[in-house]
Amino acid sequence: MALKLYGAPMSTCTSRVLTCLHEKDLDFELVIVDLFAGEHKQPPFLAKNPFGQIPALEDDDLTLFESRAITSYVAERFKETGYDLIRHHNIKEAAVVKVWTEVESQQFHPAIAPIIFQFLVAPLQGNLPDQTIIDTNLEKLGKVLDIYEAKLTSTKYLAGDFYSLADLHHLPYAYYLMKTPAASVVNDRPHVKAWWEDISSRPAFKKVAEGMNFGEK
Amino acid sequence: MALKLYGAPMSTCTSRVLTCLHEKDLDFELVIVDLFAGEHKQPPFLAKNPFGQIPALEDDDLTLFESRAITSYVAERFKETGYDLIRHHNIKEAAVVKVWTEVESQQFHPAIAPIIFQFLVAPLQGNLPDQTIIDTNLEKLGKVLDIYEAKLTSTKYLAGDFYSLADLHHLPYAYYLMKTPAASVVNDRPHVKAWWEDISSRPAFKKVAEGMNFGEK
Repeated sequence: MALKLYGAPMSTCTSRVLTCLHEKDLDFELVIVDLFAGEHKQPPFLAKNPFGQIPALEDDDLTLFESRAITSYVAERFKETGYDLIRHHNIKEAAVVKVWTEVESQQFHPAIAPIIFQFLVAPLQGNLPDQTIIDTNLEKLGKVLDIYEAKLTSTKYLAGDFYSLADLHHLPYAYYLMKTPAASVVNDRPHVKAWWEDISSRPAFKKVAEGMNFGEK
Repeated sequence: MALKLYGAPMSTCTSRVLTCLHEKDLDFELVIVDLFAGEHKQPPFLAKNPFGQIPALEDDDLTLFESRAITSYVAERFKETGYDLIRHHNIKEAAVVKVWTEVESQQFHPAIAPIIFQFLVAPLQGNLPDQTIIDTNLEKLGKVLDIYEAKLTSTKYLAGDFYSLADLHHLPYAYYLMKTPAASVVNDRPHVKAWWEDISSRPAFKKVAEGMNFGEK
């Protein structure tokens, strides 16, 4: 076992992978990439990910990047270890996990990411959060979560009555969202709220959330 | 075999799945969803995809949506049929396919989609293409393609010296881009251009491209 994760605990994409590694009960080394020093834009890290974004994972001689590709690899490579995040014994359930994993990527993420950027990153850059961007994307996010609300009345989790990678991928951005005034978009939808409370209370994520202090003093 | 694809041949996301089905040499039925009549927003289609977007795939009693989830399912479910798009015999190569599949989804797509929207969809809605949106996203796309250019000097395709799902996923948007004045963002980068010419000349895609006449008279 020689898993090395290059990233930063407060980063959403690093947290996504960390949560997966904990769900799989895997030993790994976290190598901190100093974003404030611009380490992710320097040659040693660019050799791991030419896009200059954390995280990257090394598994012996294999180097991977893009958090969702890493979790998918980890869940498959270590499918017999820890919690089964991809329903690997059942191709139909596994397919539905893929569907809702893509929903996170294509529907949820494009709406929530600009909101988190405005609330947490813009102030670090000396700007006030842009309320128009927040409002536009909150409206988009609300529409996505209306569909989640309907889905979660019939199944406990997004892909079925089992927690999976599809749920897990939502955790980091939703965690930061819940610390902002925009949390009402979740709290106003009872099934989405119950789902959030369930998935965010899993021990694997609670451990990761301890390091997620972005934007805090 | 009872594969039914609900979509429209000119749609980028339908084309992505069609190309995959042809690469896998699969028999399927294409059921046309009439977008101009708003059929994708009506209950029968919403029962297949609550987000009201094409395509959706039925494989007997299994219904899937999100084009990238569908291709991933098809490539896995029929891994012994047609062309192997996911390198299923080699977990490391398969992992790198996942990485570059996510690169398409998270880096390439967010930059190219607004460009195609402005050139092809805005005029249908009675608007002129917004040049500021085009320019901003062309700059983003250029930066992504700079990294592709560097990668494609060392391997013939994105994930290695083999064509894979990672390359395939780029085809539909790139196809429409190449019909616009923005095609120079590809043509100005020799390795990206050679890659584009290679992947777009595969028989599976050529068959699909015949139906891709969005925005044409």
